[in-house]
Amino acid sequence: MEASHSCRVVIPIDLKKKPREQKIPLHNRWHPDIPPVAEVRTGEVFRVEMVDFSGGGITKEYTAEDIKYADPSIVHYLSGPIRVLDVDGNPAKPGDLLAVEICNLGPLPGDEWGFTAIFDRENGGGFLTDHFPCATKAIWYFEGIYAYSPHIPGVRFPGLTHPGIVGTAPSMELLNIWNERERELVETGLQSLKLCEVVHSRPLANLPSTKGCFLGKIEEGTPEWERIAREAARTIPGRENGGNCDIKNLSRGSKVYLPVFVDGANLSTGDMHFSQGDGEVAFCGAIEMSGFLELKCEIIRDGMKEYLTPMGPTPLHVNPIFEIGPVEPRFSEWLVFEGISVDESGRQHFLDATVAYKRAVLNAIDYLSRFGYTKEQVYLLLSCCPCEGRISGIVDSPNALATLAIPTSIFDQDIRPKTNKVPTGPRLVRNPDIPQCTYDGKLPTTKNPSATA
Amino acid sequence: MEASHSCRVVIPIDLKKKPREQKIPLHNRWHPDIPPVAEVRTGEVFRVEMVDFSGGGITKEYTAEDIKYADPSIVHYLSGPIRVLDVDGNPAKPGDLLAVEICNLGPLPGDEWGFTAIFDRENGGGFLTDHFPCATKAIWYFEGIYAYSPHIPGVRFPGLTHPGIVGTAPSMELLNIWNERERELVETGLQSLKLCEVVHSRPLANLPSTKGCFLGKIEEGTPEWERIAREAARTIPGRENGGNCDIKNLSRGSKVYLPVFVDGANLSTGDMHFSQGDGEVAFCGAIEMSGFLELKCEIIRDGMKEYLTPMGPTPLHVNPIFEIGPVEPRFSEWLVFEGISVDESGRQHFLDATVAYKRAVLNAIDYLSRFGYTKEQVYLLLSCCPCEGRISGIVDSPNALATLAIPTSIFDQDIRPKTNKVPTGPRLVRNPDIPQCTYDGKLPTTKNPSATA
Amino acid sequence: MEASHSCRVVIPIDLKKKPREQKIPLHNRWHPDIPPVAEVRTGEVFRVEMVDFSGGGITKEYTAEDIKYADPSIVHYLSGPIRVLDVDGNPAKPGDLLAVEICNLGPLPGDEWGFTAIFDRENGGGFLTDHFPCATKAIWYFEGIYAYSPHIPGVRFPGLTHPGIVGTAPSMELLNIWNERERELVETGLQSLKLCEVVHSRPLANLPSTKGCFLGKIEEGTPEWERIAREAARTIPGRENGGNCDIKNLSRGSKVYLPVFVDGANLSTGDMHFSQGDGEVAFCGAIEMSGFLELKCEIIRDGMKEYLTPMGPTPLHVNPIFEIGPVEPRFSEWLVFEGISVDESGRQHFLDATVAYKRAVLNAIDYLSRFGYTKEQVYLLLSCCPCEGRISGIVDSPNALATLAIPTSIFDQDIRPKTNKVPTGPRLVRNPDIPQCTYDGKLPTTKNPSATA
Amino acid sequence: MEASHSCRVVIPIDLKKKPREQKIPLHNRWHPDIPPVAEVRTGEVFRVEMVDFSGGGITKEYTAEDIKYADPSIVHYLSGPIRVLDVDGNPAKPGDLLAVEICNLGPLPGDEWGFTAIFDRENGGGFLTDHFPCATKAIWYFEGIYAYSPHIPGVRFPGLTHPGIVGTAPSMELLNIWNERERELVETGLQSLKLCEVVHSRPLANLPSTKGCFLGKIEEGTPEWERIAREAARTIPGRENGGNCDIKNLSRGSKVYLPVFVDGANLSTGDMHFSQGDGEVAFCGAIEMSGFLELKCEIIRDGMKEYLTPMGPTPLHVNPIFEIGPVEPRFSEWLVFEGISVDESGRQHFLDATVAYKRAVLNAIDYLSRFGYTKEQVYLLLSCCPCEGRISGIVDSPNALATLAIPTSIFDQDIRPKTNKVPTGPRLVRNPDIPQCTYDGKLPTTKNPSATA
Repeated sequence: MEASHSCRVVIPIDLKKKPREQKIPLHNRWHPDIPPVAEVRTGEVFRVEMVDFSGGGITKEYTAEDIKYADPSIVHYLSGPIRVLDVDGNPAKPGDLLAVEICNLGPLPGDEWGFTAIFDRENGGGFLTDHFPCATKAIWYFEGIYAYSPHIPGVRFPGLTHPGIVGTAPSMELLNIWNERERELVETGLQSLKLCEVVHSRPLANLPSTKGCFLGKIEEGTPEWERIAREAARTIPGRENGGNCDIKNLSRGSKVYLPVFVDGANLSTGDMHFSQGDGEVAFCGAIEMSGFLELKCEIIRDGMKEYLTPMGPTPLHVNPIFEIGPVEPRFSEWLVFEGISVDESGRQHFLDATVAYKRAVLNAIDYLSRFGYTKEQVYLLLSCCPCEGRISGIVDSPNALATLAIPTSIFDQDIRPKTNKVPTGPRLVRNPDIPQCTYDGKLPTTKNPSATA
Repeated sequence: MEASHSCRVVIPIDLKKKPREQKIPLHNRWHPDIPPVAEVRTGEVFRVEMVDFSGGGITKEYTAEDIKYADPSIVHYLSGPIRVLDVDGNPAKPGDLLAVEICNLGPLPGDEWGFTAIFDRENGGGFLTDHFPCATKAIWYFEGIYAYSPHIPGVRFPGLTHPGIVGTAPSMELLNIWNERERELVETGLQSLKLCEVVHSRPLANLPSTKGCFLGKIEEGTPEWERIAREAARTIPGRENGGNCDIKNLSRGSKVYLPVFVDGANLSTGDMHFSQGDGEVAFCGAIEMSGFLELKCEIIRDGMKEYLTPMGPTPLHVNPIFEIGPVEPRFSEWLVFEGISVDESGRQHFLDATVAYKRAVLNAIDYLSRFGYTKEQVYLLLSCCPCEGRISGIVDSPNALATLAIPTSIFDQDIRPKTNKVPTGPRLVRNPDIPQCTYDGKLPTTKNPSATA
Repeated sequence: MEASHSCRVVIPIDLKKKPREQKIPLHNRWHPDIPPVAEVRTGEVFRVEMVDFSGGGITKEYTAEDIKYADPSIVHYLSGPIRVLDVDGNPAKPGDLLAVEICNLGPLPGDEWGFTAIFDRENGGGFLTDHFPCATKAIWYFEGIYAYSPHIPGVRFPGLTHPGIVGTAPSMELLNIWNERERELVETGLQSLKLCEVVHSRPLANLPSTKGCFLGKIEEGTPEWERIAREAARTIPGRENGGNCDIKNLSRGSKVYLPVFVDGANLSTGDMHFSQGDGEVAFCGAIEMSGFLELKCEIIRDGMKEYLTPMGPTPLHVNPIFEIGPVEPRFSEWLVFEGISVDESGRQHFLDATVAYKRAVLNAIDYLSRFGYTKEQVYLLLSCCPCEGRISGIVDSPNALATLAIPTSIFDQDIRPKTNKVPTGPRLVRNPDIPQCTYDGKLPTTKNPSATA
Repeated sequence: MEASHSCRVVIPIDLKKKPREQKIPLHNRWHPDIPPVAEVRTGEVFRVEMVDFSGGGITKEYTAEDIKYADPSIVHYLSGPIRVLDVDGNPAKPGDLLAVEICNLGPLPGDEWGFTAIFDRENGGGFLTDHFPCATKAIWYFEGIYAYSPHIPGVRFPGLTHPGIVGTAPSMELLNIWNERERELVETGLQSLKLCEVVHSRPLANLPSTKGCFLGKIEEGTPEWERIAREAARTIPGRENGGNCDIKNLSRGSKVYLPVFVDGANLSTGDMHFSQGDGEVAFCGAIEMSGFLELKCEIIRDGMKEYLTPMGPTPLHVNPIFEIGPVEPRFSEWLVFEGISVDESGRQHFLDATVAYKRAVLNAIDYLSRFGYTKEQVYLLLSCCPCEGRISGIVDSPNALATLAIPTSIFDQDIRPKTNKVPTGPRLVRNPDIPQCTYDGKLPTTKNPSATA
């Protein structure tokens, strides 16, 4: 017997089963031809359950082997597509806006834990992969609203839980746009973009691949499966349809206004995060978990034309709008680290917010590592704790200026600079024993040339 | 007779006088040899007054002529340098951290107004100069904590007032680093950086210039003036010494921890903002004003080594740390616009937060212009209202994802998407009559190819 | 099969069964001899489920008959007592403090609804029973964090969910103190207290009664049951052991420090509220519901002596301490109504905060009723919405000054005073059809002598 | 020369002069015949300056002699009355609502300090006068938004500055109502009210007195002065016209909607507080200071009928409405103390929020005194720091339940209960040397019978 819920469970998850064994099949690609697995009406509150983005591939074990050898081709397992009809039974139509309200969300009962990880540099890495090439993992346990980790002792914080991914299915036309522009980047990007030399994440984009592909109700190996799998967009980047937005404040009471590109909207969601810092810098960097959403949809007829302006060559070049909910943790004090668009080699970049943010994050990691943590611990922490990444200045040539603000109350010690020196006590009590693998690749690690430690 | 203050006024401003006529001379460059104009002790609360960044060059008149022909070589007029001593009379030393607390701040009495402007594209422009090439200006009046503008009717918001610039003097070694890296960018940047094709601000950097240079107590025209003026760094970008940080939350009760590079620290400050949005997108984009600061300093001896890790080839490649104060306006609802690193031509960029933020801002401008505003009005508004620019995702190749969150309560109408259409009423009542000049340059304006209006 | 939970369910509730049929028996009195039904260790997160305070006596039906004839002798059904041991198995001892952290809480799955009611004046009434003598009820439905009611249209708000009752068992000595002082009030109160003439709630206190008594594992009808039932304190008032505190902010992440009076502490809890306004003025005035708590206990040995000071003739005259959690709805605008200690007849009271608060609540009810509501609707709303009741002035003889602050964003219309008149539209659209009974008693209703409507 | 202000200074204060020497005369009574001293128009921002409530009678000296012998007959010095006209020159009329917006406020430049005091029991005392009969004083200094006191070391907090008093002049009819009801209380109160035995403040009310009376432009000693002085209401209690509301959140951006009883409204204001706790328990208990207000008025014609409902025998029995501004300090953690309506002798009171609040405050004082403070220091602190006094339960007969919530971050130590004992260090480092007088009266002091210390 399943636990009863007042709202209808349109996509249930059985945690004892693998992704491919779920009663309602999952998918991990964007394509207009992935058929809906459920149907809902506007005004109805319904429940969607989901596996964690890795579908259980990354485990509770205190080892980073599962991270090191994680198969990126299978991410992210999504629940959906869900076909949305109005109260008269007419589906959402291309050109409409689909307003999706997040009435509630949380971990799946009985599965109140999560993980944060750094991918191995050979396996894609993260924002600071050139500094931290080794696969590393921290396990988090939840005590109601709070998360704590034996691998990053001395911090405990309330989660601002949110789905990493909410999106509608693209139309074929939009899908083609995505595939073309990303293919071009892969083919020519390294020649033309200096940013690649600073942000070393590889590959530049993840093009469609049949490997690891799940297409919901479409049976694997059929000709239709083959066709769709070759065309279907990967779920890693956020795009015009929403998708992997990773907006950390998109929690209870929030609303997403998604453009509709296909009949019925075909809403999918997944990649639940117990908590995430702006930027999700370690890549697998939120506290990743399984979870449930209670959603309510409205259809704004012709809303794309009414509310969205295309920003590109076609009417499809739009972005969703978000309304943030009223319930959030209340932090009163923040410590803010700054970065400018000068990279670790001292080279000047032009108004580059990515380079500036990298420097801000590196500054924060080095600072916090003085309070008893290893740098890997802090890198993981800043990926998943409720820190804010801001673009503070974007016009003062040549320096973009980005900041990273950290709420001080998540620590059990006072981390602010003192006229007296940093107390030496905490440096000894922190536990540096975090699951980590060696890095066996050949790519060099970036050092801060002038840093002593 | 001057108004009395409990705290000592170390740098007074007489608003009836021009910048060069002030009793305590101002400066507008960074150089170790600009001599201090005042001396303070740690623990003492002292008052620093300042002109607006343009030194009165931009006026209260309802015209944008002063913007169009503004001389960028004279920005920013700074108050200082201030030499900081400890209670025993020993100055701050290179390697120390200077903690500067902002006890209070505000407009100068009798001068409760400010301006927000878009620079002409030929004159430097702003973040969206390719879309908005015309010099434009809005005047804001203050009613206590609130600002309102006859040029952008229907909005009123409380200011989160802050100094745009707080910094210490660089050492000669640091100054040389700045000048070299910025010169290299100017000389080679256009060839190597694709970002220049999206963010069209020109010039790429502002190198030292004797034109418009003010050096405080150093008399103009002397050999020493000539030497320093040729070497001294411009104040436009934020750098290792702090400087033009434009951190919008750096208001009452905040603290800045600045690295000290020269004997006495030589603290300077200026560019007061009544309010600013993250990014200050219109360039002259905060509500610019004259103002006062009440500051208190502490010296953390050897604090650079204790708390900062260099991020570059030398020990000088550091950044300040900020602590945000507890008093801020309380907003409960936010509307959030998203951008991804695909530009207006549809081209894919690799994890480029600057491109993503540009698209988020453009999305927000187009959206809000549906509620009765011209796009220029919204561009100015998003530069100066308390909106938040976030780096939401920076690891999901190839798309960086940036967001712009706008507090809904600053508007006198409900700006959220509705199931019903946008009410047409407000479109008629807004006043589009904003001071603006024609654009006489030859550079093209970027259109959104698919936008109808 | 029950839904699985990571934390142990020490007291489960089966909603299909009546209170007396639950597997773990409930109780509704305070007495040291009610035996524990469960045992927990410090540091363990455990789950306690509970029925609503009426144990299902008040139903989802759109009628107020169940309110009118509600049996007050059975309130409140509590889950517990729970015996608390430390990690070594030693129980909490009298003189210790029991720190109870609320890790999580919410409605029971499948039972996401609640009710707010005004008791009939003959049946106890509420804070304004002389103004509103009729039994009235509103049903609320939950959409995740939000509640809405068909009986009070035009409002929707996020719940600040909390248990109305958390307490430890009293010792026999403390129980005797309670019974004596309350009996004295019942016997002599009407003669000596003018407050009774303003706050007309009856009876003055609820003394022990065998009627409706539940004593957990103690079998009804046995001599032991008879003895305890005659002695056991009613659960209606909060007292030294905590009990019915009704602190509306005691939500996720909060902590209660309870004095321990008996071996094992014997913690009980119940009376879950989806949301409540300060004061819970309609008596059955929160949004009452069934629910669950996830709790974690710590024992502070000898904590009563260390942290609490008795305020009365014995060392038992203490009160618990509360620590409020960090996650609350964020409201930016409040409308505040004031009352002074002058009653409806114009009589002056001396620094009486109760009289002042009554007038503040009456003022708020009358004000809001101008926006399309009946006064009963507003009375119910102010009982259960997140409004704040403050003692603003308590020293300015002869007037105590109390305020009631209401967050404006819970309404779908702007309720602030306008230079123009109140719009007439909304007055028509509100639905006054709320379940209500006639008042058949003989007690008079208080009128505002000068009010026209 | 005076400091210039963009807004017109309608009532200036010269701090070097005594109250009776000010250019614009002050007043300290409510009466319709006190003539206006200034005139303003709706929409105009104007500046009102004020002396502290004692008009300089209480000084910066580190002695409590001035408190012990303070003359209560002269409080509160008010600035006004101000006559309010609409843009056409028509005055506010009885029956209108006067909306007064607080655009800005603060201490007078050069006078950035304040005091908090306990009055001697013989001289009126405060909320806990039976426990703390001795005149005591603490001086506070302001560092911008922060206050600190050498007499209460270890705390520093941002001020939520507000005027204690804002009110309109009463009509003769309203004035007569006040005088009658307060006289009756004085004459018969002790016989009928048990609350007097718990809250020992004396006298029960302050009736009109010619002693210490200031009537603005009315010359002292004239027959008119004699008549008005005999009739004019004292300013101590808040009443129907607003007056001494002491609403601690009435800060920048707030709005008061005041009923108008006389032609022109005759607005007066005074009693500026740098900060105050709910209840202002020590009586002279806020941080009292001189200050300025920048105000803007609107007139809502016939607003009393439109928005206010009389709560008493006449249409004049109304209360103002308040709208709280958006700028407040942000506190994330609160420690909450509770009280129930059982007094120190163990006696049960019936739903008496005043008794409950007294017990909550006493609990908080005793608790905090364990962290190195004397009880008098804490009593003063809880009077003036931004703590919240709430009516949590007012219906659970016989106990009213009141709470006092204290933001933990105002202390430089962690004041939460710990599993370990209170650290002994801080008990030694606090400075108990606070200006205090002996109590020479004959009234007994209330002890907590069971308290050891």
